[in-house]
Amino acid sequence: MSRPPSEAGTWVVLSGGSGGVKLAVGLARLLGERLSIIVNTGDDFTHLGLSISPDLDTVLYALAGILNEETGWGRNGETWTFMRALGELGEPTWFKLGDGDLATHVDRTWRLRAGARLTQIGAHQATALGVRARILPMSDDPVRTVVATDGGPLSFQEYFVRYGCRPVVRATRFEGAAAAQPTREVIDALSAPDLAGIILGPSNPWLSVDPILAVPGIRDLMRTSGAPIVAVSPIIGGQAVKGPTAKIMAELGLEPDSRTIAQHYADLIHGFVMDSADQALKEEIRLDAVVTNTMMRSLDDKVALAQQCMTFCRRLSEQRLVGLRASP
Amino acid sequence: MSRPPSEAGTWVVLSGGSGGVKLAVGLARLLGERLSIIVNTGDDFTHLGLSISPDLDTVLYALAGILNEETGWGRNGETWTFMRALGELGEPTWFKLGDGDLATHVDRTWRLRAGARLTQIGAHQATALGVRARILPMSDDPVRTVVATDGGPLSFQEYFVRYGCRPVVRATRFEGAAAAQPTREVIDALSAPDLAGIILGPSNPWLSVDPILAVPGIRDLMRTSGAPIVAVSPIIGGQAVKGPTAKIMAELGLEPDSRTIAQHYADLIHGFVMDSADQALKEEIRLDAVVTNTMMRSLDDKVALAQQCMTFCRRLSEQRLVGLRASP
Repeated sequence: MSRPPSEAGTWVVLSGGSGGVKLAVGLARLLGERLSIIVNTGDDFTHLGLSISPDLDTVLYALAGILNEETGWGRNGETWTFMRALGELGEPTWFKLGDGDLATHVDRTWRLRAGARLTQIGAHQATALGVRARILPMSDDPVRTVVATDGGPLSFQEYFVRYGCRPVVRATRFEGAAAAQPTREVIDALSAPDLAGIILGPSNPWLSVDPILAVPGIRDLMRTSGAPIVAVSPIIGGQAVKGPTAKIMAELGLEPDSRTIAQHYADLIHGFVMDSADQALKEEIRLDAVVTNTMMRSLDDKVALAQQCMTFCRRLSEQRLVGLRASP
Repeated sequence: MSRPPSEAGTWVVLSGGSGGVKLAVGLARLLGERLSIIVNTGDDFTHLGLSISPDLDTVLYALAGILNEETGWGRNGETWTFMRALGELGEPTWFKLGDGDLATHVDRTWRLRAGARLTQIGAHQATALGVRARILPMSDDPVRTVVATDGGPLSFQEYFVRYGCRPVVRATRFEGAAAAQPTREVIDALSAPDLAGIILGPSNPWLSVDPILAVPGIRDLMRTSGAPIVAVSPIIGGQAVKGPTAKIMAELGLEPDSRTIAQHYADLIHGFVMDSADQALKEEIRLDAVVTNTMMRSLDDKVALAQQCMTFCRRLSEQRLVGLRASP
């Protein structure tokens, strides 16, 4: 695929582990090292003594071209000998750790214990795997997403993996967020003089993007950056492309459609990107909105949506909509 | 193979990671839960944040019937995806960690961090893998074998694996040994009223058995147990069956033959088992000695040598040689 002409400046995308990753892949293809991906770490947890960062891993593998595209997590060409041996030792096997995937966790775990920051470790791993875009944990401090369910509070991985998103969600909270700090690298990315746009990727707002926005300072940095901020809806025709977003929205008493997503981000964003399937809802969204194909099946789809988001940001900048909003 | 009639009582074998393991397999086949294997932990080290106990692992895998017999370490049917991924991350790959093998280390590491003793973890793993013999680390305290070489001091794994035993050995020392304590389980095994014999397996005396004997109290427990103590020579016809024993003996200025092995243990043992190839040396050994086939290629070989050692111990007991030596 020839590389389309890219927009100037630096860019930021906020991502969880599913739709946001696909968009990040498209943006990275266009922008290379001019892209910073601020990644949710609310799903991080310690399992069998290993420090696991599911969303960082998925972003890393996707950008390195080694993501298992079928599952949407883990590495392609993976083997599972470790899990079999672990089961033979009577250890819990509900969280699947592929043999190659383990290298990422073992590397992260010992480097964290040796005093490295999560950000540094991610940069080291990204460089080793040939990734040019900057993969930035939202914070080096621990933030843990807790899902309040009918059956009591669950850690994200328990909710998501162990119980397969079956419990009914009543609320989410982000433990540690109030005390967490954005990293120097996140601050720099959001404060860059040439920052051309900030994109909220089509990840689950309640479980993947809100933890990032819950880190004190990140919302303010976004608002004062002067850059246009657009969000891409993870809901298409009332359904999540992947994962429990629509189910959770219904459980939280929200209408599971693009309109609700736009409302959720309304105080932060300047523009909204929604799928052609939701054309009928466009008039109800009180934001500048672009209607396009947001279903990213191929690399071409990812690059095309990335290009649309960038073009949209450029137009918002030119229309000085950002300036109007920045001076209330 | 039918199970040969076994001797009564409980038995102890001291083992490193090669020849001693083979003999332990033979003894375990005859004795089941009546065998305690006191294992060298001087080779233990922390690598990539993982607590690795090479000799415990080899004994565990051998007794569970999953040892890679070709290499003499690691598991059979192993895969190596982790190592490839680790190399891609730019991490050191000189110490080979198989995917299934990793489960043992990850399990050990997190349980140690959670406060379990190495002995408890080994018992848990052995039970999980269906091993009935008791695999006992010589100590739960860290003891680290350091090899003083012409090129300076090396940890055992650096000497053995990283530098392939090439450096010239000038001395060995066992850091931490003076402060280490034998475990309650080791003390119990060596103090058992029905202890019928103690066997020093054909492991490297300087690198594998001496670390065990360096743990304060173990020599005394052996001497005061009243049980006959026999050693099996790891040298056959001036050669080590496997590993650097003969090379190290020469570097230490010792004649690399069975006689030197017998002398090395002379103040501790009542009997010596040597290979038929060394028949000519028997007269020079000032100990009761059995000459037999000590090369263990098949399970039958292992069981046969185990049976010989047990019969030898029984004879030594009957001859009251033990009693004579125990009252100087």
